[in-house]
Formats: sequence, structure tokens, C-alpha cells
Amino acid sequence: MSAGRIAILGAGAMGSALATPLRAAGWEVALWGTWLDDHLLAAARAGDPHPRTDVRVADGVELFDSGDLEQALDGADLAVLAVASVGVLDVAGRALDGLVRARAVLLTSKGFSPDASGRVRLLPEALRDLASERGVELPPVVAVGGPCKANEVAAGRFTASIFGCADRSVAEEAAGSIRTDAYRAAVTDDEAGVEICAPMKNVYAIALGLADGLQERDDEPYHDLKAATFARALQEMVVLSAMVGARPETAMGLAGAGDLEVTGLSGRNKVYGSRIGRGETPSEALDAMAAAEQTVEGVPAAKLARDLVDQRDAGAWNDLPLLRAVLAILDDDPDPVARVAEAVLP
Amino acid sequence: MSAGRIAILGAGAMGSALATPLRAAGWEVALWGTWLDDHLLAAARAGDPHPRTDVRVADGVELFDSGDLEQALDGADLAVLAVASVGVLDVAGRALDGLVRARAVLLTSKGFSPDASGRVRLLPEALRDLASERGVELPPVVAVGGPCKANEVAAGRFTASIFGCADRSVAEEAAGSIRTDAYRAAVTDDEAGVEICAPMKNVYAIALGLADGLQERDDEPYHDLKAATFARALQEMVVLSAMVGARPETAMGLAGAGDLEVTGLSGRNKVYGSRIGRGETPSEALDAMAAAEQTVEGVPAAKLARDLVDQRDAGAWNDLPLLRAVLAILDDDPDPVARVAEAVLP
Repeated sequence: MSAGRIAILGAGAMGSALATPLRAAGWEVALWGTWLDDHLLAAARAGDPHPRTDVRVADGVELFDSGDLEQALDGADLAVLAVASVGVLDVAGRALDGLVRARAVLLTSKGFSPDASGRVRLLPEALRDLASERGVELPPVVAVGGPCKANEVAAGRFTASIFGCADRSVAEEAAGSIRTDAYRAAVTDDEAGVEICAPMKNVYAIALGLADGLQERDDEPYHDLKAATFARALQEMVVLSAMVGARPETAMGLAGAGDLEVTGLSGRNKVYGSRIGRGETPSEALDAMAAAEQTVEGVPAAKLARDLVDQRDAGAWNDLPLLRAVLAILDDDPDPVARVAEAVLP
Repeated sequence: MSAGRIAILGAGAMGSALATPLRAAGWEVALWGTWLDDHLLAAARAGDPHPRTDVRVADGVELFDSGDLEQALDGADLAVLAVASVGVLDVAGRALDGLVRARAVLLTSKGFSPDASGRVRLLPEALRDLASERGVELPPVVAVGGPCKANEVAAGRFTASIFGCADRSVAEEAAGSIRTDAYRAAVTDDEAGVEICAPMKNVYAIALGLADGLQERDDEPYHDLKAATFARALQEMVVLSAMVGARPETAMGLAGAGDLEVTGLSGRNKVYGSRIGRGETPSEALDAMAAAEQTVEGVPAAKLARDLVDQRDAGAWNDLPLLRAVLAILDDDPDPVARVAEAVLP
């Protein structure tokens, strides 16, 4: 696959950021904004920095408003789904005709999606179910994961992502056609492995943040606790991977360890955890972040992960003490620090 | 093994720090200082904070000067070797009679040790060779690893270590007898796995520090690069583990991922890497740190790791691009950032 035309659906942080390596790799880029993205497109049209990444959208990107979805997808060799995970099925449904014509759908949206009966699915499965209900078949889905902060991708700084597709050759072609000096994608056929790590790293970043909050509270490092939490989170990502048929090495690589590392360095989930570590109750902290329009993706992901475990392998709960601790904290456990410490200490 | 009498050889940061959980767990603790530790013992006797941890040595610890090694070891059920890795064989040789009488030797010193012919060994093997040359046999060696910053252990903050002993029951007994609310040890029979990770995390922390230095230089985060470096380092620790007969899960747990995480958060190896990231040449940076009496353990460890790979499995060099990059940097490669980026990007 050489560079052709690509339609990015979702003009938020990651959608707009990917335009940087795509343009650098020679792609024609159509960037479509949802009905919530008007102000983001307006900033791009004005040549201002993108409000979410603080970086200007790459030169030469064609911008499409929410009403112009068909035009955005017209002639696209590849499509990227980069909308917030709550909106991904809605957008995919509207875009289905165009998606079906693409050679592959790259999925940067991440999360769990329950079906009508409440069964928790990974997003690629949810997308395929959606297409199937409409009597069409999606092209291969490429799960895009790994440690990729949108602002760094947008700024053209070094980034190692990972593309997971059941048809490995599709992931390889896509990775090859988007390669730049700064942006590279590793390749795996373990689509489910890439998908399960992405929401779980947000869940575990809450626990990582706790140690940072303790440090802020006491002005003393809690690095040993943070590192023990990191190691425990990684072990649990392997347990959860097995539950969805994924391989442990995916969790141990860029998709798991790499993404957990970057998520523990910054981001809203970590900030939420650090507020709790500083002493706010989990509810207070969540309210404060909601007031600042900061969604904490790890919170709904944790609850869906609970359903996933209950549905797929409830016997594995013994091997998931840190997930249990995070869930207890979200239920306003009176001693979050003790819960996390008990979960991560041998 | 219930709490009895333990002799800690080496009154530096980690030796003195371990007195905190040991005393809390009910052990009689003899802390012996080497001929380089007089000022450390003097501070302890004066009730001042330990100069390396900034925490007072735990109450009730008996302090022994370098000339009183036999007295320190007298009646010790366990011995801890906690001297700097360059001095560990020297001290072990002097202490051999006492070590042989102990039920186990806990080893917190970490590093590689070449034998007379230049063959690179892990420290437990070097210790056993030393005993064997003297016609005696050491008790089981327990490799102590995992994310344990001495200042946090000393202060009694949460710490998850890992005890590795070929005789797993010995590691279990030791871990059980030193357990406190804050300090816990996981247990493995993979002694070599715990041993190989410890010096290698110092090597890879230099590379992790590079990203921090770039961030300081540019006032922009390089988190994606740091996370990609982390994931790559973890992969390479698995490769190196195989080389010494260790298991991958040890590198993926507290001994590898956990210790790499904590070492990437702070410490001299990371600081050395960050100086290089800020633009100092590797030689300048090393000189500056030497002038401040800050040894960078990752530097000699990297060179011994090179010998280890050459000796054990030179075919594995293809799978060790980050180790090669660190070695090139130590040889004053003109573009350290490009070297690391090429090594860690797919």
C-alpha cells in the first residue's frame, strides 16, 4: 500500500494529530469533524493551534464539517476511526458505506462496547457486528495502539505505535505506508491484544496516579509503590489478554507496557488517581474533573472490565487484585491507599 | 524461619535501609560498615540521618566497624551482602567463615563479575566460585531484587521486593520472616532472572533518562520516546534473561518491569542519561558526575553486558539494538538521540 487518500473521522486530539505523520508520508488527508468538533475545525481553518494538542493541524489537510461525511470519505483508500469511544458506533453507522469501500479501517478509538444483551465486546467486534446487522462486511480493522500521546504525534516527535490486524499483511502495508522518521508502527496479528490493553491501561493509570498523589501530599517520593503498581498492572493485563484470546507478548510490548508507561507519566486517568492519593474522595475528584470537562476514561472502562471478567472468566478474579482495588475505590472505598497497597504488595 | 539474628554487611544506603523492615519484623540486626563506611556509622551513632538515605537508622540496630567483622557475623542466622558491587567479592572473602555458618545469604549487591579468564558471571555464581576455591560451600544465596529505593525502604514506605533462590523454600522462609505491613517480598526460584535484571535496568535507565533530558532541553514532553524506550528495554531484558538460563516472566515482573520503572523515575543512571539528552557529551556528563562523587553503575554494567553477550550468544546482538545504542553512546557517539530513537522505534 503506498500513500493514497485517507479519511480521518474525528477531529479531536488523536484524529488531528495523525494528520502530521500521514501528510509527512505523502497521504492526501481528509479530516472530518463530528457535530461536537465544530470549534476544533474552526481553529484549524483559522490556522490556530488545535485546542486539544496545542499544535497546528498539518498543512494541506482538507477539513470537512459533520454534514459532509460522505464527501470526506469519497475515494478514501483507508479510513481512520478516531472519535471518542462513546461515539464510535454512531459515527461508524453513519459512515458505513464509505468504510466498506476502504481497504482497511484504522481504529484509534479505544474502549469496551456492550451489545444489546450487555455482553462486553472489544470495539472491532462491535464494529463488525454493526456491519453484519446491516448486511455488509467491513474491510480488515487495524487496531492502533501503543504509547502515542496526541500532542507528541502532532508535533512530529518520536512515536512508536503498534498496528494489530488479524490479517497481518494488512497491518504491515498500513504501517509501511505511514512510516516517517519520527512515527513508526510495529505490527502484530494480535488485534485483540492491542484492543484490550488500551482501555485497561486507563484503568490501571488511576492506580499509578495514586502514588503520585501521595508524593504530592507528603512531599516524599512513593516510587516503590508506583513501580510495584506498574508491575502488578502489567501482570493483570496479561490475565485479561488471555480472556479475550490475546497473547501475553502483546501486553508485554508497546501495546501494554509501553502504553502503560506513557499513561502513567501524564494524562487524565493518572491525574484522577493523584487527586485521590492527595486525599480527595473518589467522588469529589471525579466531580472536580467533570466540572473542568475532563472525562476520565478509566472509570467507565473499569466497570465494563468488571462485566467482561464476570462474563468470560469469573474464576480469574483471584488474579486481578488491582482491578478489584480500582473498582473498590470507584465505589468510594474509605482507604484507597491501603486497597492499592494490599493489591500490589506480595 | 522466624526472626532471629541477621548480619548486614555494608552500611551504605541499602544495607542501612533494610534495617527498618528487619527491626519491624523482630530481627536482631547487626549492621557492619566497610572501611569506607566510617562516616556512615558515625552518623548513625550520633542519631543523625543516614547521609545516603536521609533517614535515621532504625532503633536497636547494633553497629560494627570494619575491624569487627567476625563479631558482626557471630551467631547470625542470615547474612546480607549489601556492599557496592565492586567490593562484594572482597568483603565476601573476608566474611566467608561467618557466611558459611548462616542459613542463607541475602544478596542486594548487584552487578556482573568477570572471573580470572574474563568470563562474565552473575554475582551468586561468583560468590559460589569464591567459596569453592576456599574449599567450603555457601548456604543458599537469595538474590534480592525488585523496585526498592533505599530511602523509601528506610522510611518504611510501601515496597515490593522479590527474593530469588534456586531453593524456593529458602526464599519463601526468608520472605515470610522479613514481612511487614510496608515491606513484602515476592518469591521465585529464578535466581538468575532476578540477578540479570538488576544491572541491566541500570544500563537501560541511561536510555530512559535521555528522553527526560530532551524534555528539559525543549520544555516539551518526550513521553512517547521514553515509553518506547521502556518497552524496548523490557524486551531486551527478556533476551538477556534467556542467555543466563532465566525465565521471561521474571523480567516481566517486579525484578524487571518493576525495577526498570522505579529506576526510570529517579537515580543516577537516569540522571546521567538526562544530561546526555540535554546536550552534554557522554564523557562530559560522566566527568561531571564523577566530580560530584556520583558513580553511574550502568556504565561498567553495560560494558560487562557486552562481554556477556559476546561470550554467551553473540547471535543475539540483532535482538539487542538498545544495548548496542547505549554502548555506542558510552563510546561518545555523536548523535545519542538518533541512536536511541533508531533502536527503539519499530
